[in-house]
Amino acid sequence: MSAKTETIGKFLDELASDAPTPGGGGAAALSGALGAALVSMVCNLTIGKKNYEAVSDDLKKTLEQAETLRAALTQGIDEDVVAFNTLMGAYGLPRGTDEEKAKRSEAIQSALKEATLAPLKTCKICFEVIALSKEAADKGNLNVISDAGVAVLAANAGLRSCALNVFINAKAIKDRDFAEKQLAEVNALLATAATETEAVYQTVKGKIGG
Amino acid sequence: MSAKTETIGKFLDELASDAPTPGGGGAAALSGALGAALVSMVCNLTIGKKNYEAVSDDLKKTLEQAETLRAALTQGIDEDVVAFNTLMGAYGLPRGTDEEKAKRSEAIQSALKEATLAPLKTCKICFEVIALSKEAADKGNLNVISDAGVAVLAANAGLRSCALNVFINAKAIKDRDFAEKQLAEVNALLATAATETEAVYQTVKGKIGG
Repeated sequence: MSAKTETIGKFLDELASDAPTPGGGGAAALSGALGAALVSMVCNLTIGKKNYEAVSDDLKKTLEQAETLRAALTQGIDEDVVAFNTLMGAYGLPRGTDEEKAKRSEAIQSALKEATLAPLKTCKICFEVIALSKEAADKGNLNVISDAGVAVLAANAGLRSCALNVFINAKAIKDRDFAEKQLAEVNALLATAATETEAVYQTVKGKIGG
Repeated sequence: MSAKTETIGKFLDELASDAPTPGGGGAAALSGALGAALVSMVCNLTIGKKNYEAVSDDLKKTLEQAETLRAALTQGIDEDVVAFNTLMGAYGLPRGTDEEKAKRSEAIQSALKEATLAPLKTCKICFEVIALSKEAADKGNLNVISDAGVAVLAANAGLRSCALNVFINAKAIKDRDFAEKQLAEVNALLATAATETEAVYQTVKGKIGG
């Protein structure tokens, strides 16, 4: 079952339930996808419109990028479930003999790396959506400029949310070089994203006179 | 068509398109609904579990409240469309004669008030979700505590997003007493929410060792 073909009501019901998936990682990817979709909306309502001829070519590129990111983030909802289930599967492996213990430990460590890289990938995509939100806020049709503000908030919430899963899983990884590398990367993204998000939100607030 | 029965893929497609609705207001309400659902998830995975007996009664109340807010926010996705269409309908009224002009202006002002109160209502509900996220972060099962962090980020993004629509519509209202009252209210919510959201996020980060 792909999240894409699920109804919003059912997805929310499953999220709220005591089922382990979908969880925060899926909600985070969806948040990023909402951000990407709103960037596309601003582009679609700007390109070719009167008074926006000068920015139309730029926003065509932004639209194309936003649609690619939206597809990746929508798929990310499902990928989060896969990463989670793989990790749970590894924890569930038998640990009767020393050999089994070693095999289980190896499977867990491998799954933890995957479960760190999957949300980190979503973090990176959300980070790109933030950059596109800036384009939309700077150049988009003033009639829908608030949607660029909603886009950047959704993308940054997605980034910060996925970062929590990176923190959790990286913590349990024994290969500390690998773990610290991913943590440094996510922390750098978070710091830049915080500044950029506030800048875009203030741009939008300024344009709508809020 | 209710957003609840729409697939995630279709909702995102419509959001991204050049159709005026759904727009940022609907995405904001959905973001709040994701937050409420995640609070419920944390409650559902804590209530009755070993070591969490002492907080189970509290979290039963939190769960009940979160589910009420989730229903209201899911409905808010559709209410945003109604408020937008009412406003567009008012702008589209004939303005040939003085009488028509007066009637149109009155309809626009009335619709603007509705289109200010609708997102303000969503802001208030998102604000309540932030308070519930704090409960979930303080008392929830440590195994799913990150979901309380995702919840608070989604709820705050929803609040700040809806606030943009309050700003836009309040600006065009001629009844300045009414407009300033709503703006004061939303600005107070935003200020408190910013502090509370960061506090909850840091609580979660601390608990997961991030």
